[in-house]
Amino acid sequence: MSLNDEALETLKTELLDAFNDEAPNKDALTERLSEIRSADIGEILEEMIEEDEALNTAIGVLNLLSDERSANVLGYLPGDSQLEVVGKLPDGQVLTLLEEMSSDERADLFNLLDEDRREALLRRMAHREREDLKRLASYEEGTAGAIMTSDYVAIASGMTVSQALMRVRQTAPDAETVYQLYILASDGQLIGTMSLRQLMVARPGALVDDIMIKDVISTMVDEAQEEVARVVARYDLIALPVIDADNRMVGIVTHDDAMDVAESEATEDFHKGMSIGALEDGVSRVPLWSLYRKRVMWLVLLVFANLFSGAGIAYFEDTIAAEVALVFFLPLLIGSGGNAGAQAATLMVRGMATGDVGVKDWSKLLGRELLVAGSLGLTMALAVAPIGVMRGGEAVAMVVSLSMVTIVLFGSLLGMCLPFVLERFKIDPATASAPLVTTLIDASGVVIYFSIASAILTSVAT
Amino acid sequence: MSLNDEALETLKTELLDAFNDEAPNKDALTERLSEIRSADIGEILEEMIEEDEALNTAIGVLNLLSDERSANVLGYLPGDSQLEVVGKLPDGQVLTLLEEMSSDERADLFNLLDEDRREALLRRMAHREREDLKRLASYEEGTAGAIMTSDYVAIASGMTVSQALMRVRQTAPDAETVYQLYILASDGQLIGTMSLRQLMVARPGALVDDIMIKDVISTMVDEAQEEVARVVARYDLIALPVIDADNRMVGIVTHDDAMDVAESEATEDFHKGMSIGALEDGVSRVPLWSLYRKRVMWLVLLVFANLFSGAGIAYFEDTIAAEVALVFFLPLLIGSGGNAGAQAATLMVRGMATGDVGVKDWSKLLGRELLVAGSLGLTMALAVAPIGVMRGGEAVAMVVSLSMVTIVLFGSLLGMCLPFVLERFKIDPATASAPLVTTLIDASGVVIYFSIASAILTSVAT
Repeated sequence: MSLNDEALETLKTELLDAFNDEAPNKDALTERLSEIRSADIGEILEEMIEEDEALNTAIGVLNLLSDERSANVLGYLPGDSQLEVVGKLPDGQVLTLLEEMSSDERADLFNLLDEDRREALLRRMAHREREDLKRLASYEEGTAGAIMTSDYVAIASGMTVSQALMRVRQTAPDAETVYQLYILASDGQLIGTMSLRQLMVARPGALVDDIMIKDVISTMVDEAQEEVARVVARYDLIALPVIDADNRMVGIVTHDDAMDVAESEATEDFHKGMSIGALEDGVSRVPLWSLYRKRVMWLVLLVFANLFSGAGIAYFEDTIAAEVALVFFLPLLIGSGGNAGAQAATLMVRGMATGDVGVKDWSKLLGRELLVAGSLGLTMALAVAPIGVMRGGEAVAMVVSLSMVTIVLFGSLLGMCLPFVLERFKIDPATASAPLVTTLIDASGVVIYFSIASAILTSVAT
Repeated sequence: MSLNDEALETLKTELLDAFNDEAPNKDALTERLSEIRSADIGEILEEMIEEDEALNTAIGVLNLLSDERSANVLGYLPGDSQLEVVGKLPDGQVLTLLEEMSSDERADLFNLLDEDRREALLRRMAHREREDLKRLASYEEGTAGAIMTSDYVAIASGMTVSQALMRVRQTAPDAETVYQLYILASDGQLIGTMSLRQLMVARPGALVDDIMIKDVISTMVDEAQEEVARVVARYDLIALPVIDADNRMVGIVTHDDAMDVAESEATEDFHKGMSIGALEDGVSRVPLWSLYRKRVMWLVLLVFANLFSGAGIAYFEDTIAAEVALVFFLPLLIGSGGNAGAQAATLMVRGMATGDVGVKDWSKLLGRELLVAGSLGLTMALAVAPIGVMRGGEAVAMVVSLSMVTIVLFGSLLGMCLPFVLERFKIDPATASAPLVTTLIDASGVVIYFSIASAILTSVAT
């Protein structure tokens, strides 16, 4: 059973109390921790590290665990917490932890250290480890290279099934996954793959080359991580092999890392959809200054964009002064248009992110949106018409209803098309956020509304 | 290599052309299809089925594949497309396909069939299969039971390592995954688990009971599917065992199904965030009528909610008539408040969905939001002040700046708190959508703005 929040809280208090003692009973604590999963210990330590004074307790807890276990727990902490812990440890211990971490996590942590510390650690590493770490640490963030691990099971072309099984047993303790095997030619080129399942039911004397699957799904080392996650999801893979420009195998991305990427990409899109920049950590932990910066940019930009609505209103000041009742319907009309438009934009942005919608679908979707938005506009016009009659008479009702249909239709089409336009200009379609779409529709809505109003009311008056 | 969109399009045209012939060269087509992955064939068939006249071609393609392969391809189609295909096939063939499908997909398809068809198919099944299918089909949608499969590797307590390995080899062709094994007591209770990796390096004569992990992470059969996906992600599992109320094992949820759930839950939250109901299919395929219904409800509700803004304006009609320039800033102020509030709501909703934010974090997050929103409000007030001076003089600038700070602060706090309030009342926090938050802030913003305006402008006038 996994621990619930309450059990985690209890354990945390227990640990904090124990370490407040002069001489904590380390054996009892070690025993207690042996029953707890690394992911859960990680969560407790994360909370301790946030509360600065408990950082020493967190390190005390780590020191109670075996090297392998503490490396494992460390891997569950966010980068800045890892950094705080490592900052308090001597080089020798950091080196041991780095060795025990999986190669992708090792590279991530290494990249966070400052130059001096990195140099000091590299000097104490064996040549092979150093080169592997430098290579993994060199890939750009957000690419397949940055999330892959080099701990996979490589089988040399020409091996028999029983030789391959032996190799699996040997590498089992270190490999990230042993369930998918990769067959490499002597120059390191990836020429085939097979699952451990296939290997286990194959004739022991057969050559792996004869039973492997030659048409391997793979990805390039500089491929974007969200695309990597999509391929893993689409083909239900346990791991996706990563190759370099020469088709040489350099690593694998495992299903659990792909799932983490998919989750963080979705979070980023959620935030972008509300004009919030990508946060480097969860909202409850990210520094306040950073949260401010990620939110303020678009908000201020939109203040100025909103001036267009104001300018529209200023232009129609006479119309408004003549019929102040019109202002009553202003928030309603531009709000409704904004809502419908934001809906249309979100449907497209998410459709594009999941691969359901492509640029080629544009014209078909435009037709669909025209019909749906038209119906929505009519429904909402019917809803608002009686209120128009009540507040301003039949002429105002006509203005308001007609404006509602036009604004909802215009807003929906604008919201639907904007993501495609952005995509065409190689800008992330998620930039078509609800606040941006809403602001654009506000300005257009003002113009549409008062244009219709001045046309109809003038003709009624004359 | 996986196929890109263009290659898929080419293959689709090729297939359509071939089947337009009087006598298509079936051998050549079978050969061609043998090189294509099931997921890719599934995507092509899905497009064919959407275009109604090509449904027969889609069935023709399926008939070229082996039973196992066509069941596999069928599994990649969305429910309604599966239904269209199955509607054209005789009972015998449907029975074969159902047998070949994995047990979770079989139950999903079965649930979509009409009563008569289900009865007809059940009558022709063997007793064991029938019971298994009825059981899986009976679990409520959205629960662990509905997404689990019963094709897992069960190892009887008391087996030796070599006996267990034999069992793995025997079940390899049928099991959904053989990489995680479950040790069951004679009454079916789940008492332990081990990975195939552990089994492979263990001494052949050892008892599985001695090396298994007894503290199994499992889930209840009626647990919500999003929680299941979260547990799989949190503990990096290949599969999560599902147990019933008596701790008897009933199935597993595999990592790929968990990833699909996480994606569709994220999509649902995206849509909810813009007040769109859960769609039963991708936006490009869902029927227009359904798309209309899922969007219209909140839009119309919000029309009426927006009337409060109108009422606010009506109440302050004299203030407005006295200083029409105030209207110029109205969209700007309520728009800015809405944007900031929608940001705050989104940060909380997504944080809750990923498990980063819990109800207990409320007070801490409130303090943080107070600081961040205060800073945002001040920044935006500074941005808007000069425009206030330009358009209406110093008094108006003061009104607008003061309103900006107040509205942004109020809006952000409202947006931040609403998801917590909803959660407390057991309503999905994602209901705190941008349109809802924006509309609430619009109405409050009108009141705040004109209250400040009438207070300050009156005191200036006197």
